[in-house]
Amino acid sequence: MDNPETIDKQVFNFSAGPAPIPREVLEQAREELLDFNGMGTSVMEISHRGKEFIKVAEESEQDLRDLMNIPANYKVLFLQGGARGQFAAVPLNLKGSKKSADYVNSGHWAQSAIKEAQRYLNVNIIADGKLSGFRQMPSQEQWRFSSDAAYVHYTPNETIGGLEFPYIPETGDVPLVADMSSNILSRPIDVSKFGVIYAGAQKNIGPAGLTVVIVRDDLLEKHTSACPAVWDYATQASKDSMYNTPSTFAWYLAGLVFKWLKRRGGLAEMDKINERKARKLYGQIESTRFYSNNIDPCWCSRMNVPFTLADPELDAVFLVEAAKEGFLYLKGHKAVGGMRASLYNAVPESHVDALVSFMQEFERRYG
Amino acid sequence: MDNPETIDKQVFNFSAGPAPIPREVLEQAREELLDFNGMGTSVMEISHRGKEFIKVAEESEQDLRDLMNIPANYKVLFLQGGARGQFAAVPLNLKGSKKSADYVNSGHWAQSAIKEAQRYLNVNIIADGKLSGFRQMPSQEQWRFSSDAAYVHYTPNETIGGLEFPYIPETGDVPLVADMSSNILSRPIDVSKFGVIYAGAQKNIGPAGLTVVIVRDDLLEKHTSACPAVWDYATQASKDSMYNTPSTFAWYLAGLVFKWLKRRGGLAEMDKINERKARKLYGQIESTRFYSNNIDPCWCSRMNVPFTLADPELDAVFLVEAAKEGFLYLKGHKAVGGMRASLYNAVPESHVDALVSFMQEFERRYG
Repeated sequence: MDNPETIDKQVFNFSAGPAPIPREVLEQAREELLDFNGMGTSVMEISHRGKEFIKVAEESEQDLRDLMNIPANYKVLFLQGGARGQFAAVPLNLKGSKKSADYVNSGHWAQSAIKEAQRYLNVNIIADGKLSGFRQMPSQEQWRFSSDAAYVHYTPNETIGGLEFPYIPETGDVPLVADMSSNILSRPIDVSKFGVIYAGAQKNIGPAGLTVVIVRDDLLEKHTSACPAVWDYATQASKDSMYNTPSTFAWYLAGLVFKWLKRRGGLAEMDKINERKARKLYGQIESTRFYSNNIDPCWCSRMNVPFTLADPELDAVFLVEAAKEGFLYLKGHKAVGGMRASLYNAVPESHVDALVSFMQEFERRYG
Repeated sequence: MDNPETIDKQVFNFSAGPAPIPREVLEQAREELLDFNGMGTSVMEISHRGKEFIKVAEESEQDLRDLMNIPANYKVLFLQGGARGQFAAVPLNLKGSKKSADYVNSGHWAQSAIKEAQRYLNVNIIADGKLSGFRQMPSQEQWRFSSDAAYVHYTPNETIGGLEFPYIPETGDVPLVADMSSNILSRPIDVSKFGVIYAGAQKNIGPAGLTVVIVRDDLLEKHTSACPAVWDYATQASKDSMYNTPSTFAWYLAGLVFKWLKRRGGLAEMDKINERKARKLYGQIESTRFYSNNIDPCWCSRMNVPFTLADPELDAVFLVEAAKEGFLYLKGHKAVGGMRASLYNAVPESHVDALVSFMQEFERRYG
């Protein structure tokens, strides 16, 4: 890093994940990377069972509880294996004596969860966005709940499809389970409506390699003997997520992100900022026929915004020109093509402004 | 970190894991933490599917192949979930049409692997160190191999007990599986003798949150439908360990550790250094009745050295005095008590010298 121009290179990172981490957090991590807490050693090198790391773990959990207003009858776990790991862990933990679970199919990630769950129980698809091309979801009155489901699983935000639920489904006494990987912490939610919330960290929490699970107390004891111990909610809850060695560095960084969120005003403030960011980008897309997004407006994701150019031949040009200006990872997922901009908490509003300006300029030159 | 004395505080970290990472590696990580490869962003913030991270992944795999001389018919996977995750993943991947597997009980970690495997198949304990108080293992002629085992599992190094196999067992056509978490990369080994080698990263590879699995090609297709996809060796091998988002930062750091090992002369050189380090510490322990280690000399671990004081009342004093001199994590595991010094690759020989001097001085004062 001899070249100061390199260090100060302005980039605008819209990656869907692993995604941007707040600059302040990275700067603090760098500052103390070789000497954590005056210990003369890196936080990566300390025992997860020592008092110094236990303090990191406890503070991060408390900060997350404060941010999300997590009720006392919920456990918070910091595990490994990502959301895809939880696709297996959820049925293995919640199946109990039931034979089936209800799943809502809202797109790519919901389908991946369904496919994995089918290894362990019967899956009833109670609502299917496929009928609308995943542009919206059937209204809740149309959902065909089973009479004997172990739980209802849904995906509040589809990272690839760009569809986000505008409400939390009502499932009565049946536990509601949510893969909140790509919109956790983006707004206040009522945790008490959920049985389990899980999220891979690499979007709104921190670096990849950490998985947060929030689980209601009464669901801890339903696990089957086939559940691997490292994913057994009851086992991990009884050991404060240290039944096995956790991803200590990722956990520490997540803790720094939680503190950053608190300093910025918490989720109510993030909600406002995320709303502004999304409005700016969707506003630009909707203002012209040059760009488009085909999701029903009520169902547009604030976190992941896929869009296409009227002329797909220009896709490659758009990406090359964008890269020249420092825009990273605007290419859409290969399953859908086109472009995608992910607007997680750590993406500054000014970066969205820069993207909108670039899109306007690009349209002027090629439209 | 305003205080330069804090930065230069000399500490001697003997943690059993998460454990020391080479200083040069941490310095490079700090140097490029906010700007990886001139991208203007941290390596934590880039997509695992982008060319920059794929280069990290490919280089780290090649460096590990070079270091361990891994034959071409073995896949190398970089997963999550630690060795405890593999305790479940191994039977789920290797069971095939068999009903049982053979396990060698060498102590705490072998027993943990056995307990987890029993969820998925019948476990035959073919050799048991319990008979000798885990001071040594029965000679191989005494092992009672089953006629129809899916595989033979053993633990080459017991991190807690401090027992290390001085040889690689011969299992004929039955695949040999090794939990090499705490002695991988500590010496050259003949990988072709193994069906599967797995290791949590947090001892000799890098930070916690990464698990390396080395698996022979012909074993990829035996997995059961109950194996979670993120741990399915065939699935992950076909996707270059990117079926789900990997622990990118931990993987990157592991890659830096592999390059550090190559610069230092590879595993042949580490073997010599580790031998010297272990001889120095065991030499000190054996030279006096003040300290003792009760493992049979042929079975003494070079990586994890538990020892006790003749007077257990002095344990607490020893730890307090040691901490004053900058020695970290010398307390023995709660399952065995006493002291333990872990001498992984990243522990400099000079730190072992310092520990030996401290032990001599402590004996002079309290012996």
